[in-house]
Formats: sequence, structure tokens, C-alpha cells
Amino acid sequence: MREVYLDYSATTPTKDEVINEMLPYYKEAFGNPSSLYGPGLRAKEGLTNARQQVADLIGADPKEVFFTSCGTEADNWVLEGVADAMKEKGNHIITTAIEHHAILHTCMYLKKYHGIDVTFLDVDEEGFVNPEDLKAAITDKTILVSIMMINNEIGTVEPIKELAKIAKERGVLFHTDAVQALGNMPIDVKDLDVDFLSMSAHKIYGPKGIGALYKRKGINLPSFVHGGAQENRKRAGTENTAGIVGFGKAAELARINLDEHIKHSKELRQYMWDLINEKIDKVRLNGPKDFDKRHPGNLNVSFSYIEGESILLLLDAAGVSVSTGSACSSGSLDISHVLASTRVPMEVINGTVRFTVGDFTTKEDIDYAVDALSKVVDTLRKVSPVTGKEGW
Amino acid sequence: MREVYLDYSATTPTKDEVINEMLPYYKEAFGNPSSLYGPGLRAKEGLTNARQQVADLIGADPKEVFFTSCGTEADNWVLEGVADAMKEKGNHIITTAIEHHAILHTCMYLKKYHGIDVTFLDVDEEGFVNPEDLKAAITDKTILVSIMMINNEIGTVEPIKELAKIAKERGVLFHTDAVQALGNMPIDVKDLDVDFLSMSAHKIYGPKGIGALYKRKGINLPSFVHGGAQENRKRAGTENTAGIVGFGKAAELARINLDEHIKHSKELRQYMWDLINEKIDKVRLNGPKDFDKRHPGNLNVSFSYIEGESILLLLDAAGVSVSTGSACSSGSLDISHVLASTRVPMEVINGTVRFTVGDFTTKEDIDYAVDALSKVVDTLRKVSPVTGKEGW
Repeated sequence: MREVYLDYSATTPTKDEVINEMLPYYKEAFGNPSSLYGPGLRAKEGLTNARQQVADLIGADPKEVFFTSCGTEADNWVLEGVADAMKEKGNHIITTAIEHHAILHTCMYLKKYHGIDVTFLDVDEEGFVNPEDLKAAITDKTILVSIMMINNEIGTVEPIKELAKIAKERGVLFHTDAVQALGNMPIDVKDLDVDFLSMSAHKIYGPKGIGALYKRKGINLPSFVHGGAQENRKRAGTENTAGIVGFGKAAELARINLDEHIKHSKELRQYMWDLINEKIDKVRLNGPKDFDKRHPGNLNVSFSYIEGESILLLLDAAGVSVSTGSACSSGSLDISHVLASTRVPMEVINGTVRFTVGDFTTKEDIDYAVDALSKVVDTLRKVSPVTGKEGW
Repeated sequence: MREVYLDYSATTPTKDEVINEMLPYYKEAFGNPSSLYGPGLRAKEGLTNARQQVADLIGADPKEVFFTSCGTEADNWVLEGVADAMKEKGNHIITTAIEHHAILHTCMYLKKYHGIDVTFLDVDEEGFVNPEDLKAAITDKTILVSIMMINNEIGTVEPIKELAKIAKERGVLFHTDAVQALGNMPIDVKDLDVDFLSMSAHKIYGPKGIGALYKRKGINLPSFVHGGAQENRKRAGTENTAGIVGFGKAAELARINLDEHIKHSKELRQYMWDLINEKIDKVRLNGPKDFDKRHPGNLNVSFSYIEGESILLLLDAAGVSVSTGSACSSGSLDISHVLASTRVPMEVINGTVRFTVGDFTTKEDIDYAVDALSKVVDTLRKVSPVTGKEGW
């Protein structure tokens, strides 16, 4: 059976070039990078090189890049670190209703245990934050604004530069979770003028278990993980050298291939959307209608009368991998907070599937997947008790 | 030039069997383990298997094992999580003066930012905690006792079972950092009766960037990293599947090879110590004199009149890797807090080197290393201005 993977926003396979760079760090260069002898120094060189590669992808200075264990940790670090560091100034954080759980749940934690007030900005039906709303929400107590660069479910590209400028004018630190944006659009931290930016390797064909935080030079952020002097005393714990080196290589490849990757993703995404419309009726595109304002590989589609999870399971039986909502919340029966926040009608919200294409996706994959999808939708609609009923 | 690695306590090379288990998780089984389709479920199976393997090494139930990004994170998690969860009960943590920085620096952080009081128990000249001291230190406000199982610098094996019992009798939670103990002595969490235990893969021939926390069933510990529902909602962030699978395999190998590993380490350690004494005068063994009460592969030796860092650098030039103190604090000019706490005389404290042997160490390695060492010590003593002077 053909296997078609259409969930690149959940994770990506690690590219061969990346694995090949990583392997020596398990054996020949296995030393502890904090050590002063040969095998340690060889490992340290790998870290230095990778830090430059990641910095180059976002236009940062390597001294501004700190490796973490994942994008989620980078998000946690910024929120908790700023809450600690700015205690004297205030206790108010502004974010959006459609952030990743890494942001939302950290906010809930800070609220519950550390007296932080949180404002969740509403978004419009396509998922965009209104800059005016941000302006209105900032108070004297605001210490941080955290808004994602690209939404992980519906692909909305937020106007980060404009939003960061508003925060800066009011003297408030600005963070963006760029986990979905990295490698999927050009990112220049100096041009965006953000203070913090979160990244993850496994979304750009690097390994899982490694992420990074960009922290603008000069900004005080207490450590999140305390202990040894690693990462310029900012992130303790023996470095995941192989993972870091893999992230570096993946970042280099992402930088070199950026234009081609975006072009390929957009072409296949368009091809898939056209094919879906040709073969299946009663579909609704969620997120921005303007394809240039969404993640280049993302389609988020609601199918009337049926359940997304059933679609997922039957597609899986046909060898096609897709997701409902985000991978991080699958297994949960909650309605997607992103779809709810963007007013996807309740009658179709459960019939939603996210498709994301990537570097290894081919037109033949799409042909196969949409063919399978149309059969699955047919089958499910035949047995659905609400098919054809009004309001569904 | 021969390369002899004698720093197994800093980190270990990843064994081939471990790498071979990991590789499929970068490609064929690269799916996000939170996903519900085939490639995700294959990844999930790897996690389930690895959790069992790690649980088996410490006599735990797999539900009590939570993967983290490193041992340091596990340490941070327990301290900060208990501080949060027990806020109403108290704000006092007891630890020792010779813990790893992952514990000490987290305590300092909690003190500075979150009003936690910390008692650092003193140790005797061999590094042992006196159970009577622990008894005396517990107050009504004490919420946690954290004492390492084996010290990373001088190899002291603490009487954890006895110490945990004291805490339990007073209704206080007990944590042990077992990063140096794992795979180097039998560990049974039920017999030890501890509530939390920290582990790391890269000290037992697994990959860097992955650790775990044992948390006794039923104990409330808020998440440390907030976000998705991974690790039974206890540790957010896409799982480092390859790393976790590698940890699992390393744990399985450690369990199967435990007796042989200990026997091999002890033999070579004894061989090395005898050879050092035969070839070099004015040496001082730090840590327990009773070799059965220290890490099986650890020697911590002070050489009069000279500097440990110079020894390290000249040995490195001869292809021999050793460390002064711990890898995590190398690069820092501070005197080792462990050596200072165990009253190593100030005149030899800077002349200290840690040697740790492991599975790949051979007698020929030791012959070569001690030969090089004796030459290095000779050379350095010849140029030392204090050689032969009293008090040095």
C-alpha cells in the first residue's frame, strides 16, 4: 500500500544529510562539550557551527541563539523567565486565543501559581490578530506580548512586525513562537524587531528533542533550567550535541532551499485544494482565504456531516496520514480552541482535517490522497444521520 | 596516537546497539507519537517499550517513568514542582553541600525568586551525609529532601535508603539524583522507598539530550514544561522519540550487564589506583577509602605541588581524557564545592583530577594513561615553585 504523509506541520522526517551530520556525535565526537580535552572540544566545535547555522536562518548573531530541548521549552522559558525578571515592573502578559498550548498552558500555570494576569486577544474569522486590539490591551503592568508567527492549525501568518512595533513603542517585550514559520517563510529577527523567538528542529526536517530560543542581545532572562554553565549559563544540562548538530544542518538546508521549499509547498497545496473542490462538495476552508497569508503547505478543511477523527482513521487505513487540529492535542476530545476562536460553525467544527504538504510530497501523493479522501467522505456521509440536513 | 578516555562520569559513547535502535525513529518511524495514524503509532510503540525498559532498570512501574530532556531537567522539575505544589504546607528544602549544580543552582533560584529556604547539609571528609544531621534539619516547614545517590566528583555512595526512611517518618517527600548511580549499582525504587529519582541516558551509553524522572504513583507534581498532553500530561513538547528509544535500549543493556559492568569497572579502577601509587608519590585519594562505598569506576586524586588543569591539558596532549571536578563546572575557575566541602586541604585542592573508567576501558589503556600521567606529574613538579615545600 502506498504511504502518503500529509502532516508536515506535526513533524517531518529527518533528512539523510541531517542524520549523516549527527552520527559522528554519538561515537567519535561523543565527548562532553563542557570538557577541555580533545573529544570534548570536537563536540564543542559542532555546537559552535550549529549555532551559526541556526542564527543564519533568522538573521541573528550566534550569541543570541540558545538551544533548548524543544520549541515548547523555549516558549515556557520566555514566559516564566520574563515573569520572574519583571516582577517589579508588572504581572500582565498579553497573548492570543489561538496560540499553541505551549503558550496557553504556561499562561494558565503562571496565573495559577505566580499571580500573573493574562489577556487573550481575540482573532478574526481568518485567525488574524487586530493590531488595534493589542494597542488597547497594553497597560502599565504589561511585561510581555507573545504572539505566534504562523498558527499551527489554520496556517494564519500574523502581522508580527506591526505587532512587535506596537509593543516596542510601549516599552513592552515581544515574543513570537515561530515553530511553524521557521523554514516556511523568510525570517529576519532584526527586521521584525522582536525580542524573543522560539524555534524547533523537527518541523524543518531535523531531529525531535531539540529547539532554540532567539533572545535579543542585552535582554535579561533568568535561566529556565538551572545547573551547569552550558549555553552561556542560560540553559543547564549536558548539551544534546547530536541533536544540536542536526538542527544546525537542518537550518542550513532550510535556508538554502527556502524559496524552492515554499514554491513546491504552495504548488502542491493549490493542486490539492483544487482537486478536493473538484471531487468533494460541501467543504469549507478554514483560515485565510488568501493563500499568500497562510503557511505555504497548510490546508485546513471542514467536511459537512461527518467527523474529522473518522476521516483520519479511514484515511490511515488507506495509508494516508493527516491530522485533526494539532498533533499535540490529538487524543483529546476537546474542540479545537483555534477553530472555535475563528468561529468555524459548530456543525462542521468536528468535521475538520488539517493537511500539510512538505518537501517529499508529490503530485502522485496528492492524487492518491484526494482519491482516498473522496471515497472516505462518501462512505462516512452515507452512514451519517445528519447528511443533507439543514444547518449541517 | 592512542586515545584513552577516562571520563565516563562526564559522558559515555553511545553503544552501537543503542544507535541501531534509534536510527529507524529518524525516518521510517519518524511520526509524531501524539498522532493517531500508523507512523505516529509506530513511534508511540517505541516510547512504550522504552518506558518499560527504563522502569525495569529501577524496579518501577512504567507509569512512574516520565521522560525529560536530561537529568538536570528532572532535578529542576522535582524541586520547582514540589515548591509549587506544597506552597501551603511550607517553603523549606533540605539538600547537601555536595549536590550537583542542577540541584544547588535550582535551590538558589527558588530562594531568590520564590521565597524558598534551603538547608545545605554538611558532609564528612569522605562525602557522607550523617543521617542524624538530616533528622535535626527537618522542620514543620520542610517540603522536600533531595540527596544524590552517588556524588559525581568523589564517587561517594550515600545511604539513600536510611535517609529516605527518615524523611518518610516525618512525612516529607524524598528525591534522589541518581544520574551517577544509574547503571553503576543496583537500584530498586521500591526497596529504597524514594518518591522521586532523576536519571540520564548519556551516562549509561545512551544518547545525550534525554533523561527521566521516576515519580512514585499518586504523588502530585505540577508539570515543569507546560503545553501539549505528552508524557501523561506531565511533560509537554513533542517527544524525542529516537532519544527515548535509545535511552530504553541503554537501560536494557545496563540491566543485563550490570554485574559485569560493576566487576569490570572495579577491577580496572583498582588496577589504576595500584599503578598510580606504584609510579607516583605524594598522591591523595579523595572520597571514600572503602572502594565498595564509591562509584565503581571513580578515582578522585590530588597530586601535590601542581595544578589539575595543567595535568588535564598535558594528558590531553598525550591522548588521555580526564577531568578536574565535573564537566559541568569545567571552564570555571571556582574551586570544586565538593572538594572544599570534604575538607580536601587547600594546598592540594587545585591539583585534583577525576578518573572514571567504563565498559570500553582496557588494562592497556590504564597502562598507557598512568605512564603518561607519571611523566606529566614529573614534568609539572619540576617547574612548580612549591615542589617539596612544606604545607604543599
